[in-house]
Amino acid sequence: MIMPERHLPSVMIPVAPLSSASFAPFGDIVSEDGALATVINQNFAERYSDLADVDVQANGGKINVSLMTAYPRSAPIVIALMERHPLGSQLFFPLQDQPWLIVVCTDPYDISSFRAFHATGHQGVNYTRNTWHFPLLVHDSPGRFLTIDRQGPGINLEEAWLERCVRLPPSW
Amino acid sequence: MIMPERHLPSVMIPVAPLSSASFAPFGDIVSEDGALATVINQNFAERYSDLADVDVQANGGKINVSLMTAYPRSAPIVIALMERHPLGSQLFFPLQDQPWLIVVCTDPYDISSFRAFHATGHQGVNYTRNTWHFPLLVHDSPGRFLTIDRQGPGINLEEAWLERCVRLPPSW
Repeated sequence: MIMPERHLPSVMIPVAPLSSASFAPFGDIVSEDGALATVINQNFAERYSDLADVDVQANGGKINVSLMTAYPRSAPIVIALMERHPLGSQLFFPLQDQPWLIVVCTDPYDISSFRAFHATGHQGVNYTRNTWHFPLLVHDSPGRFLTIDRQGPGINLEEAWLERCVRLPPSW
Repeated sequence: MIMPERHLPSVMIPVAPLSSASFAPFGDIVSEDGALATVINQNFAERYSDLADVDVQANGGKINVSLMTAYPRSAPIVIALMERHPLGSQLFFPLQDQPWLIVVCTDPYDISSFRAFHATGHQGVNYTRNTWHFPLLVHDSPGRFLTIDRQGPGINLEEAWLERCVRLPPSW
């Protein structure tokens, strides 16, 4: 199948390591890194608490705990569509120790606002409500994720088809 | 270090595979098994939605997303203490494809009410509020888990030290 977006003009953007400073405008990084461990369970466990601001109660919403499997997109990865959720946050955490990719922006019609990150298999993210993001993105092999987002009344999905696409480099 | 509970009388109970029918009195199994997949993200992902009844709002509570690392207990695994959370549910999902163990009961002073399960690395559990359970339990090697439970005002932990301990068999 030929993906139609491959024929649109596209601009390559760099892929940076996921870090709190650069991801802060878009949400939380869910990770042990930089978090304070509490020793519990008679010293048989460590706990890193309160790693994400889950925001799902608008308009009568409630939490939706899901499992997702994402299938790899072949190179070059071209971003032709962005989405956001006006009624709730959305958290993804990888269930295998494999890197994955994140593409966000503040304005889907402004290429300069796009950021791409590579996350480790120990890093999840929680997009704040209304953060524009590309859907779950893996390369090389399928990836399972635990997802925490919102279910409930109201329209909680907006999509934007890009006028100019974003392309990720073949390696980073 | 000699664990004092090793000297208490103990009763061995069987360890059964985790299954919905047998775990139902204690909570949800969080798993793709038996759940309906929805194809999303332009056919690049499958989603299994609404896998757990997260119940954390009592008494002004809110969700707490945590990461935990559990360290293995050496054989024989002896259960001398059970705990429960009167104000909220508690969900654990494994972050590596390794089996783990679950011990629950309806009455910590009634050995016949105890059940032990071995879960796969693709199965999480969500204990309903007030379900008596042993803390996170791994064998062989440390295990990382994503946890969804409650934070907020009030006392959300009850512990019961057993009069007669429960012991798990060396293999199952």
